[in-house]
Amino acid sequence: MGLDPDPKLMPKMSIFEFNREIIDATSDLVCAYKPNLAFYEALGIEGLRALGKTLAYIPRGIPTIGDGKRGDIASSSEAYARALFETFGFDAATVNPYLGYDSIAPFIAYADRGIFILCKTSNEGSADFQDSLYSKPGATASTPLFEMVAQKAKEWNIHGNVGLVVGATYPEQLKKIREICPELPFLIPGIGAQGGDLALVVKYGVDAKGEKTVISSSRQILYASKGKDFAEAARREALRLRDQINQQLASER
Amino acid sequence: MGLDPDPKLMPKMSIFEFNREIIDATSDLVCAYKPNLAFYEALGIEGLRALGKTLAYIPRGIPTIGDGKRGDIASSSEAYARALFETFGFDAATVNPYLGYDSIAPFIAYADRGIFILCKTSNEGSADFQDSLYSKPGATASTPLFEMVAQKAKEWNIHGNVGLVVGATYPEQLKKIREICPELPFLIPGIGAQGGDLALVVKYGVDAKGEKTVISSSRQILYASKGKDFAEAARREALRLRDQINQQLASER
Repeated sequence: MGLDPDPKLMPKMSIFEFNREIIDATSDLVCAYKPNLAFYEALGIEGLRALGKTLAYIPRGIPTIGDGKRGDIASSSEAYARALFETFGFDAATVNPYLGYDSIAPFIAYADRGIFILCKTSNEGSADFQDSLYSKPGATASTPLFEMVAQKAKEWNIHGNVGLVVGATYPEQLKKIREICPELPFLIPGIGAQGGDLALVVKYGVDAKGEKTVISSSRQILYASKGKDFAEAARREALRLRDQINQQLASER
Repeated sequence: MGLDPDPKLMPKMSIFEFNREIIDATSDLVCAYKPNLAFYEALGIEGLRALGKTLAYIPRGIPTIGDGKRGDIASSSEAYARALFETFGFDAATVNPYLGYDSIAPFIAYADRGIFILCKTSNEGSADFQDSLYSKPGATASTPLFEMVAQKAKEWNIHGNVGLVVGATYPEQLKKIREICPELPFLIPGIGAQGGDLALVVKYGVDAKGEKTVISSSRQILYASKGKDFAEAARREALRLRDQINQQLASER
């Protein structure tokens, strides 16, 4: 479940209070919490302080995914990995592959943390570069960039801590990526507000054991109600989504 | 000039004090200051507070570039653009193109700010995906991804505020990118610690008028001395680099 507090959409209260009520209402239902750092940074120091308090409040045993999509040259990526895994203490983080292996290696070096590499993202603009066809010099281009990223992620998974971000809005690409990487965990956003098809996500996203998918929903749950009942409404939405996932999983077997 | 405070490399003092002394020693020499956000985030709330104080301390009239290499789906990228341009108040920012146009559009919408899109980065890993050869379906692969990014950046430059990040370590690619984008400003890191060739950077980086390049150096200046004379040493290095750039520019004419 995404924890993306947006003052324009939430009731008038502090970010931490909002997150606390959401966590209280959903912590028995979720497999992980995924704060997107953008929403905290937009609020400056106060936002980052609220993020720290939120992370401290999340019950032990529920993994946290720092959704920052970071990536830089190695010396800077080392600092980002330190920020995500040590300063904030996230269990996992999302990273951007554009800068290549040495930009991701400092994250992968934290062998006890999870790294989700952006592969095929859920937005429309993901077509601009991720779908372009590539090949070796002189050959006929045939491999979309996102498939190249999936293949590299497999190679880079020396510690068994690498996964991929694949948007729920592209089920055919998800299917293909699962074929390339039968064993990697996938973080799958794009259900809900972005319109991804849950049945196809479960069908194509899970591994052979029906596992290794983290289906992420944010706005659809957080802002199910803008009134005082936002936490109850969030619980209702989270329950509904969890049940839909489980029903779909059951029907696949 | 990069402002990338690394406690492992700098004298024992606060980040803000370090930056203040560096700024005092170099503000008459630089065209812009470029804090890389990773180094501040790694230090948590204190780091971000030091960043805010640093930005407030930089003399008016010297542009600031927020080097965060952000990129996310539109609703999150809007929050990142707000964080960089409103909360921190940077004059420009670096962004990552992997997620495509809608991930960059929220930055470009700030028509009075500058956006440097990562094109060919200075690190070794930039070969992993940026050099991959693209083609239309069925054709022979011929266009590297970084050239596609350069072409798109040109299209996306509707407000005249788009530039590119091109590593000094790849002069031939820089030359090619300048041919594709004769009028865009380039932010060029990779001089100094990373080994880029200044003469080639000036030769290939500048536009027809000998302008529109921001040559960035960080570690070579900041850590020219680890002693108490770090600020004087930084000034010496900054002067040396500025003079080299100007000499090279003069020799090109």
